[in-house]
Amino acid sequence: MSVLVVGSLALDTIETPFGSVREAVGGSATYISAAASYFFSPIRVVGVVGGDFPQEGMTLLEERNIDLEGLEVIKSGKTFRWAGRYRYDLNERDTLSTDLNVFEKFDPKVPERYRKSKFVVLGNIDPVLQQRVLQQMENPRVVICDTMNYWIERKNKDLLETLRRINILVLNDSEARLLSKEPNLIKAGRVIRGMGPTVLIIKKGEHGALLLTESVTFSAPAYPMENIFDPTGAGDTFAGGLAGWLARTDDLSEENLKRAVIYGSTLASFCVEKFGVEGLRDLTYLQIQDRFRQFRELSRFDGD
Amino acid sequence: MSVLVVGSLALDTIETPFGSVREAVGGSATYISAAASYFFSPIRVVGVVGGDFPQEGMTLLEERNIDLEGLEVIKSGKTFRWAGRYRYDLNERDTLSTDLNVFEKFDPKVPERYRKSKFVVLGNIDPVLQQRVLQQMENPRVVICDTMNYWIERKNKDLLETLRRINILVLNDSEARLLSKEPNLIKAGRVIRGMGPTVLIIKKGEHGALLLTESVTFSAPAYPMENIFDPTGAGDTFAGGLAGWLARTDDLSEENLKRAVIYGSTLASFCVEKFGVEGLRDLTYLQIQDRFRQFRELSRFDGD
Repeated sequence: MSVLVVGSLALDTIETPFGSVREAVGGSATYISAAASYFFSPIRVVGVVGGDFPQEGMTLLEERNIDLEGLEVIKSGKTFRWAGRYRYDLNERDTLSTDLNVFEKFDPKVPERYRKSKFVVLGNIDPVLQQRVLQQMENPRVVICDTMNYWIERKNKDLLETLRRINILVLNDSEARLLSKEPNLIKAGRVIRGMGPTVLIIKKGEHGALLLTESVTFSAPAYPMENIFDPTGAGDTFAGGLAGWLARTDDLSEENLKRAVIYGSTLASFCVEKFGVEGLRDLTYLQIQDRFRQFRELSRFDGD
Repeated sequence: MSVLVVGSLALDTIETPFGSVREAVGGSATYISAAASYFFSPIRVVGVVGGDFPQEGMTLLEERNIDLEGLEVIKSGKTFRWAGRYRYDLNERDTLSTDLNVFEKFDPKVPERYRKSKFVVLGNIDPVLQQRVLQQMENPRVVICDTMNYWIERKNKDLLETLRRINILVLNDSEARLLSKEPNLIKAGRVIRGMGPTVLIIKKGEHGALLLTESVTFSAPAYPMENIFDPTGAGDTFAGGLAGWLARTDDLSEENLKRAVIYGSTLASFCVEKFGVEGLRDLTYLQIQDRFRQFRELSRFDGD
């Protein structure tokens, strides 16, 4: 099944306690599509970059067989830039600067060829734009959506409109609490699922993820990372791995949703081992399978 | 196998967003022994209370068949008192007052009859006292130990001495980071296991627990609680459930350590559903088994 990915393509300047990198290729659409590409479905990107987006970025996506017809290049403009610094334990980061550049007037146009894509991943962008994408689609089977504090606070009404039109929402725990106004995550899950998405996935960073549906509560462990180099893009990579697995299997059963959460976690664990998107560049399917199995060992126990 | 429990018996005044309670029976030895008592091993307590310790507290422990010969009652003294207030999400609490009273001069005396106990649980008390208990024991098979920030910071040398003499250390994540001076929990685990305990269990509150041994990394999920009433005693209850299961089975294999972690989590999940020790008063073994199985469902997924 084909996957349409909408989101940002960016040049990220990142500082962590372990090093730094300047203007590395990043952005939600980059991470989502790179991660999803490991599951052999056609991946299509809708986004925008400036004339300064490096050939290296294009090559990275092309090497992963990602369809870039929907990537608008504004030659006279500059690519979206983000700079951030992580604190010592990598659990918190400070945004140092955000320059939207060509992303400021981004108006997603879905190429004719993409409109029948069965899976849609709406990266973390303005909920108004997320809706504009959905309006151009012809009956997608699954819509997976990400968002963030900024849209929950500043565009709440538009976000609620988007939530009515999606199937799977991916959020982190603080965002889930903010959106639902409920500190307890299980209650928050019920409130949020009442807003539209039948499936909610709450990412808890180093503590794993929670899958919540009408009848399932599934707690996915975090991979015990000894060497987290750079958490940038981990959440997008999670969503990409999840979408890639679902698109590959075209199976939305609860058992398969659980596996999809583990595949999302698996890809995210590779992502954070290197700077930027480096960790998603040269994986093999065997490596992915192997780590998936390690996740299973990690949380498996027998009854008495 | 018999279990010796050493720790505090206290009168706790607790405020949570859902209510409050004044001078309720609590303390680490109370929670540990009540939880451990559900696994049918003889449980023995060493601790101290004042003449004001209510009959209700004695009755609670006696009804759980807990041996109180080692409980010193100083008629002229007052019982240890603690008062605390939890914040809205229950993840943080402020201590409002601590009155050590008879606990200030606590000098644990292990009755002759207790000295051959095969399992020892050292609740969170001064590491000097923890050692004094061990000196009185005759070759215990397993020593489980809890501690806290206060001892890590103020009695570091004594704590390191204690750690050399124990088998299983139970800590929360911030304590593990503080003790090891290492923000990454997996690395922290290796550092701490180098200090003595071959088994380390890191409690992560609403995020579950991590079991770390030489060859196992096991991630236990948290039970998805909708109604956490009062987190007081959850950590002690965890240690008690863990000890109770290990003493019942007398099996320290890695598979059984995993089960013990889940039983600890199971008991803790009952504890937080009510105020103080109320949640540990009237459980049945069937309820415990049932929730243990729910833990398994919570984290189980199939391969592809």
